[in-house]
Amino acid sequence: MEFKAFLTSLGTSFVIFVVLMFLFTWLSRKPSNSVVYYPNLILKGIDPFEGGKRSRNPFAWIKEALSSSEADVIRMSGVDSAVYFVFISTVLGILVLSGLVLLPVLLPVAATDRSVRAADETSEGTFNDLDKLSLGHVGKNSTRLWAFVLATYWVSIIAYILLWKAYKHVSDLRKVALESSEVKAEQFAIIVRDIPLSPDGLSRKEQVDLYFKSIYPEAFYRSMIVTDNKKVNKIYEKLEGFKKKLARAEAIYTDSKKGANPEGTRPSNRTGFLGLIGKKVDSIEYYGEKINELIPKLEAEQKVTLREKQLPAALVFFTNRVTAASAAQSLHAQMVNTWTVLDAPEPRQLLWDNLPKKFFERVIRQNIIYIIVFLTIFFYMIPIGLISAFTTLENLKKLLPFTKPIVNQPVVKTVLEAYLPQLALIVFLALLPKFLLFLSKAEGIPSESHATRAASGKYFYFSVLNVFIGVTISSSLFDKLKDIEKKPNSIVSLLATSLPKSATFFLTFVALKFFVSYGLELSRIVPLIIYHLKRKYLCKTEAEVKEAWAPGDLGYATRFPGDMLILTVVLCYSVIAPIIIPFGVVYFGLGWLLLRNQVLKVYVPSFESYGRMWPHMFTRIMAALALYQLTMFGFFGLKQFPYAPVLVPLLVLSAIFYYVCTQRFYRSFQSTALEVACKDLKEIPNMEVVFRSFIPPSLSAEKTDDDQFEDALSQVSRSGSTL
Amino acid sequence: MEFKAFLTSLGTSFVIFVVLMFLFTWLSRKPSNSVVYYPNLILKGIDPFEGGKRSRNPFAWIKEALSSSEADVIRMSGVDSAVYFVFISTVLGILVLSGLVLLPVLLPVAATDRSVRAADETSEGTFNDLDKLSLGHVGKNSTRLWAFVLATYWVSIIAYILLWKAYKHVSDLRKVALESSEVKAEQFAIIVRDIPLSPDGLSRKEQVDLYFKSIYPEAFYRSMIVTDNKKVNKIYEKLEGFKKKLARAEAIYTDSKKGANPEGTRPSNRTGFLGLIGKKVDSIEYYGEKINELIPKLEAEQKVTLREKQLPAALVFFTNRVTAASAAQSLHAQMVNTWTVLDAPEPRQLLWDNLPKKFFERVIRQNIIYIIVFLTIFFYMIPIGLISAFTTLENLKKLLPFTKPIVNQPVVKTVLEAYLPQLALIVFLALLPKFLLFLSKAEGIPSESHATRAASGKYFYFSVLNVFIGVTISSSLFDKLKDIEKKPNSIVSLLATSLPKSATFFLTFVALKFFVSYGLELSRIVPLIIYHLKRKYLCKTEAEVKEAWAPGDLGYATRFPGDMLILTVVLCYSVIAPIIIPFGVVYFGLGWLLLRNQVLKVYVPSFESYGRMWPHMFTRIMAALALYQLTMFGFFGLKQFPYAPVLVPLLVLSAIFYYVCTQRFYRSFQSTALEVACKDLKEIPNMEVVFRSFIPPSLSAEKTDDDQFEDALSQVSRSGSTL
Repeated sequence: MEFKAFLTSLGTSFVIFVVLMFLFTWLSRKPSNSVVYYPNLILKGIDPFEGGKRSRNPFAWIKEALSSSEADVIRMSGVDSAVYFVFISTVLGILVLSGLVLLPVLLPVAATDRSVRAADETSEGTFNDLDKLSLGHVGKNSTRLWAFVLATYWVSIIAYILLWKAYKHVSDLRKVALESSEVKAEQFAIIVRDIPLSPDGLSRKEQVDLYFKSIYPEAFYRSMIVTDNKKVNKIYEKLEGFKKKLARAEAIYTDSKKGANPEGTRPSNRTGFLGLIGKKVDSIEYYGEKINELIPKLEAEQKVTLREKQLPAALVFFTNRVTAASAAQSLHAQMVNTWTVLDAPEPRQLLWDNLPKKFFERVIRQNIIYIIVFLTIFFYMIPIGLISAFTTLENLKKLLPFTKPIVNQPVVKTVLEAYLPQLALIVFLALLPKFLLFLSKAEGIPSESHATRAASGKYFYFSVLNVFIGVTISSSLFDKLKDIEKKPNSIVSLLATSLPKSATFFLTFVALKFFVSYGLELSRIVPLIIYHLKRKYLCKTEAEVKEAWAPGDLGYATRFPGDMLILTVVLCYSVIAPIIIPFGVVYFGLGWLLLRNQVLKVYVPSFESYGRMWPHMFTRIMAALALYQLTMFGFFGLKQFPYAPVLVPLLVLSAIFYYVCTQRFYRSFQSTALEVACKDLKEIPNMEVVFRSFIPPSLSAEKTDDDQFEDALSQVSRSGSTL
Repeated sequence: MEFKAFLTSLGTSFVIFVVLMFLFTWLSRKPSNSVVYYPNLILKGIDPFEGGKRSRNPFAWIKEALSSSEADVIRMSGVDSAVYFVFISTVLGILVLSGLVLLPVLLPVAATDRSVRAADETSEGTFNDLDKLSLGHVGKNSTRLWAFVLATYWVSIIAYILLWKAYKHVSDLRKVALESSEVKAEQFAIIVRDIPLSPDGLSRKEQVDLYFKSIYPEAFYRSMIVTDNKKVNKIYEKLEGFKKKLARAEAIYTDSKKGANPEGTRPSNRTGFLGLIGKKVDSIEYYGEKINELIPKLEAEQKVTLREKQLPAALVFFTNRVTAASAAQSLHAQMVNTWTVLDAPEPRQLLWDNLPKKFFERVIRQNIIYIIVFLTIFFYMIPIGLISAFTTLENLKKLLPFTKPIVNQPVVKTVLEAYLPQLALIVFLALLPKFLLFLSKAEGIPSESHATRAASGKYFYFSVLNVFIGVTISSSLFDKLKDIEKKPNSIVSLLATSLPKSATFFLTFVALKFFVSYGLELSRIVPLIIYHLKRKYLCKTEAEVKEAWAPGDLGYATRFPGDMLILTVVLCYSVIAPIIIPFGVVYFGLGWLLLRNQVLKVYVPSFESYGRMWPHMFTRIMAALALYQLTMFGFFGLKQFPYAPVLVPLLVLSAIFYYVCTQRFYRSFQSTALEVACKDLKEIPNMEVVFRSFIPPSLSAEKTDDDQFEDALSQVSRSGSTL
């Protein structure tokens, strides 16, 4: 790839970005678009245009983003979002502090080296001007390499210091959130799984109540047995569907009255397949009938479910936070794989289906899924390798000769050269996240946030292995394949050899990613178009319109691994080709700014895990750091630098740092510390409300019967006896 | 070594054993020896000779041992001893069930093989008759090897089944012991370590009380701050020394009155170095004065210690067992390395000096000690290798030619051949345990039983690595040294090659060990002689006599690794040379019988850990089993058996079995399950007694002052405010 191509790529991306940004300032000022650009504000009941201040300055959003505090983020979007900003600003800090030293020091050191250049260690093509500034330009076994060794240490030490501060800060954020005096339902509940068969013929409900009453005679409030809700959910969804359809039919009817015919036309539909065949009926009557049919059916099924479909899992409620926090951490049964406990997540993120899964079933599922993910990572390796090997312009011309006349046009050529390989990659990666989330849920994880973390971890390893290592190595795969066969252990040195060759690829990748994807992110063109189309042609009722502009959440499962991929790339190249650092800084700086806006005004978090994402982020950052150190170790080896082992202490240091951080902070992310849970609440919790918030919607009957004596939700049974 | 030498060794050992056994029956019948043979009974206030039944039948002890139940063992010697018997009977079961199949099947299969024998795979020397019965006698790549593969599976599967049953049984034993309705002080207390500096200038005592009162407003009883007791302990020991000397002097004076002089002679001593120089004084007066001097000094020092030498660790007491059990498992502080908690061991096994050691100090200490142990294991390897290489008779004659005339005598020769190498080994191993216990305590472990477990683990790895692998490999070290240098990975195949050569060595080792050491164990000749000598020449007071016959405990730290060494040897040879199995059966069978007697009548346990030793034993047995499977894998490889990989699933099976057992049972050995702790007590615990039982003797003043307001032991401070 030529230098010109790179500049073209950069230029086009930048133009796209600027266009999208102006589009944003123009579109976001229109009140009719406010539900697309300010849904979080609207849902929180704040008028986005109060005082009209938003209409004047097109860059007002930047000022607002910069002046917003962490407390604002927590208030508007929760602790998890704040933790995400801690992640971004920590990474930004690492890159800025690295760049401040590495750029002025390493670039001159590399550029002024006059020793012979090994031709095989420079970027593919003739990327001369940039290559002069990279480590590849320094001669073998040169004393100048010491500067690069010191730089490797500098980056690592900066990372340690900032990560330590970040971990401490996030731990404090979590502490403050958990000791808040607000009553949060999940702080009073625990999940109990693997309930053994009752020996003396008690119902599950009685068994659980008896068990926990005898252990916590004072603090035990009530239990809720998990039931098999498949059938009741089905009926409930059907009912909700009819309710929506009824509302829609009524809205259509009301609308029609406004037109020429003051009587209006009653909407009708066919009862058969997809409303296309069958008898034609009056919609309002038909749906009303259906609803009236289903309500008693639902109630009957609810009773049956609660009474007869109790599963060996439960939620147990306590009257105070300390007991709940302590109970979630304590071993309850002598047989460790029975009565296992876990702190409850928020009601909305409970994965009910996973609760009754058995202890060893979960272990087996987990292992099977690890194998599947492993296979996925390595079977995708092959197509990605092929794509990045074939999508060079030369290969394209060779393989598809008929494209030659088009491709040889200078403009087309430059654009294709700039985007072809990267686009293939990006499209490719877009297919995966849903599959990984599905796999993570299949592990038996009980909460949405935990499943998101698990999926995000898988996606991280996937993207680092496939995109970074895969592209790097496969770009030199065809001539190196024999070497790998000979010495399969030489992956580190192979990686180190291939890195400089792929430098320009990744520079373009980072640039493309930040300009185009951030432009799309900020302008929200796609959601805007979808919203307007839906509103115009589909939505009839208020609820439907609201659904059309529902902004969704930040999407940690893919956003964070995407950032991590960039971080890994930038870290690994930081010393080899320091010119990449500014790109990384722009990526994370721009990201901070844009997402601050999005988090404050657009996205609505779909769960709150009080920063549990952080240890996970920390581990991934450390993995990237270790990969970077390992690569540098291999790289200095390739440069025949005899002092390459001076990098070994750095790897040891990383291991120690990781160990100390994990020992010092991690467990408080797993469970709630009692000193935090024991803080006073501002009011005595209404346990009935706490309890009710966990009842799944399909089971919450309008009228509560107190006569449902032994069912899964009923009040503590009258027996006061202990086990 | 010749077959004759082996028989001689066996014969002599057996004769020694029979002699010692008769000595035991004769000596144990004399009432004057009862404190040596029945100290545990006497200390429990049971008359060993009631009804005179013990005097008739010389084998009565065998009947008694056989008829004693597990409940008897628990009553007389605690759960730990019962767990030790579970270990022995499990191992015995594995060996008996293996032997029942392996002996009748494998011996004929091996003996009738007519194929060519590889000379280098038989025992050293001409141990022909036994060698015929071993796997070494089977030809390479013979189909008969399938019998040995199946045997390998059989032994492993038997082991899995019995170990599973044993783990379940021990878990039940622990459960029953912990849910006992007796009040046990340690079930009401937790250890708190790593207490941070108080931010607002509170004393440690106030800080701890405030902290725990706010978390456990109802169940918190009192705290006891750990103090720096070095000085007060010194004074206390001095005082106790003088008290003993005074008692002794008074006893001598009383004795002298009984003799010729009815007035008696007042004993005197010199005040200088060791009582040899200095002024001669009247002992009774002198010691009385010294005691009167020290008592106020002790009291003053106690006050100073309690008030001013408070350290950042404490014991915290709760008014019920559930809260204590739950508190010991819960995370208390957001900073995980502060306020760390641990369930309290019995008061008598607390290692006070280790309590205030800091979190990361403990980690560092642990790692340093692992390195020291590692070095110890591998530096001892060299001397042991040399010893076992040199102490063959031929080497002895070559190296020390002047011993030739003696050594060539047939009797001397046979005895020397039989015992020389083994004796060196046994003496050698006797030096180590104390050192390993010292190291384990230096790790910062807070309880005696835990330190014993840690020492025992180190000793196990030491003995397996050094004795088993060391002897096996070094016996063929001189011709194989070059091979190792070439392929250092070939340790498994080297082990497999060397095993058959050392078979006879280990047969003799096992035989010697069980006959001689069990003979000494049962007859208690050494403690008997020491006791009688002491009583005759040294002891003057009752207390001194009691000290002279104090039986000590079972000595897990060395006994268990010793057994494990035998088990490892027998397991590894079980298929290669099944003839070793009966020896193993005799070792563990005899061991069970003898130790049943010793545990019921002799040894007094010095601590009770409610079976916490078991998971540790289980891990070691699994390690031995894995070593066995690995060795067999190497061995079949050496036999050029193409189906050797059929043993790989066995290793995987072992890993899964270990994982499942650990997941299912282990955590209930680490902490007390709440369902166990919540059982009713037979009386309301007297918390004052519970609290006092933890006060170290040097600090327990005769009169309790309630005015010691802010010291380490004082009552909850008056402030009722929360944090």
